[in-house]
Amino acid sequence: MNDPREVRRAIRSRRHTGHTAGLAPGYVQGNVCILPREYAAEFKAFCEANPKPCPLLAMSEPGNPRLPSLAEDLDIRTDVARYRVFRHGALEGEVTDLKALWRDDLVTFILGCSFSFEEALMAAGLRLRYVEQGRNVPMYRTNVDTAPAGRFRGKLVVSMRPFKPADAIRAIEITSRYPRVHGAPVHMGFPGQIGIDDLGKPWVGDATEVMAGELPLFWACGVTPQSVVLDARPSFCITHAPGHMLVTDLENASLAER
Amino acid sequence: MNDPREVRRAIRSRRHTGHTAGLAPGYVQGNVCILPREYAAEFKAFCEANPKPCPLLAMSEPGNPRLPSLAEDLDIRTDVARYRVFRHGALEGEVTDLKALWRDDLVTFILGCSFSFEEALMAAGLRLRYVEQGRNVPMYRTNVDTAPAGRFRGKLVVSMRPFKPADAIRAIEITSRYPRVHGAPVHMGFPGQIGIDDLGKPWVGDATEVMAGELPLFWACGVTPQSVVLDARPSFCITHAPGHMLVTDLENASLAER
Repeated sequence: MNDPREVRRAIRSRRHTGHTAGLAPGYVQGNVCILPREYAAEFKAFCEANPKPCPLLAMSEPGNPRLPSLAEDLDIRTDVARYRVFRHGALEGEVTDLKALWRDDLVTFILGCSFSFEEALMAAGLRLRYVEQGRNVPMYRTNVDTAPAGRFRGKLVVSMRPFKPADAIRAIEITSRYPRVHGAPVHMGFPGQIGIDDLGKPWVGDATEVMAGELPLFWACGVTPQSVVLDARPSFCITHAPGHMLVTDLENASLAER
Repeated sequence: MNDPREVRRAIRSRRHTGHTAGLAPGYVQGNVCILPREYAAEFKAFCEANPKPCPLLAMSEPGNPRLPSLAEDLDIRTDVARYRVFRHGALEGEVTDLKALWRDDLVTFILGCSFSFEEALMAAGLRLRYVEQGRNVPMYRTNVDTAPAGRFRGKLVVSMRPFKPADAIRAIEITSRYPRVHGAPVHMGFPGQIGIDDLGKPWVGDATEVMAGELPLFWACGVTPQSVVLDARPSFCITHAPGHMLVTDLENASLAER
């Protein structure tokens, strides 16, 4: 499926129930975080204070399931294939739509995701080892504090991709043009400096080998806000299930700064 | 002296005879290479094929000492404080003007220099160790071939600046915006990969310590075209003497791509 509207229709009608990686190439996919209104201002402030891990693409009105800046037909209650529901920070279960759970006080936040910059990297001829190996990107919890906002605070989570030096420079140049989808890396070269003792043991995802003569590059990761939100134990919270992103009508190219 | 016209007037009248580092801050200083017409097309092609080491800012008409795109009053015969004169690749001597040497077939090339991007780095709060230590930047001859053009061919020369990882990422982001003054680094992290066996022994300039937890970043260097030109042993060639650059009216900021 190449058209984002077609993808959303297929998800809405349960014809597509799986991951969204590779669907609607060229279009932005977003991380989803839905919170009651009482947390919304604080979470917005947290995103604005931490734009690298939490690049805010859109925020809804309370109770309004629509996000017209991302797509006219979009309905957040039906347009994600699989959701996770949390109460007081604990996973209650997964659901395939939000019709029974929707409330008038829910505010939807959509955050940029690394699929957009990875597409730009691959378009430039750079190779992503974890993609070629059919695995998940390795993610690590660092010792770097995010900037706190209200009840939201915690450590930065990063994803790691190894490159040869010239490709690493290109990857930094390219991703620096995409500040709305994590931007340039936050670290490279010395995992211990950000509290990562063993690259072979990611917090989430699959370990990726860093070969001799390569540098590990670390990008701020969209798992950060999920980790921070759940640590704050909000009374209620809904996220997308891993890999089941919101597909929007925004073009990745529209996020590039030049 | 803050005004580039004032600097050129002082050099022209021999009131200023020294280095140009720190003069006319905010304005572009250029590397100078003057060749007989018979070499001009090949050298232009060499610059165009190697934009990182040879960012061509301006090229004169044969015999015309003026470069109006860089400054209205500019006269290349008098506006550099110290020149080097080469015949068949061998240094003949240094002169303080070109009045006695000028010929109707001479073509002037002005190439961007790292002063411009270093100013942008320092404006962003990054620290350049060699500047703080009052030394010269260390330069190394690599094993990387430039793209040949006619009689011009040879190895890439690089300059090295060490940074902590987060600053290294910022330095790459910033310099990638300045393609007309060397652009982003060509390498980082593993000097041996580009044929540099000992960072403590630069080819030109002073060694700079790379401290634990820092990465050495390598930029293509304006010494490359000088080295390549002299290796080609042109019948006649004039360059600026090291540190005695051409001060132009172009603003550094005008070279930034965004």
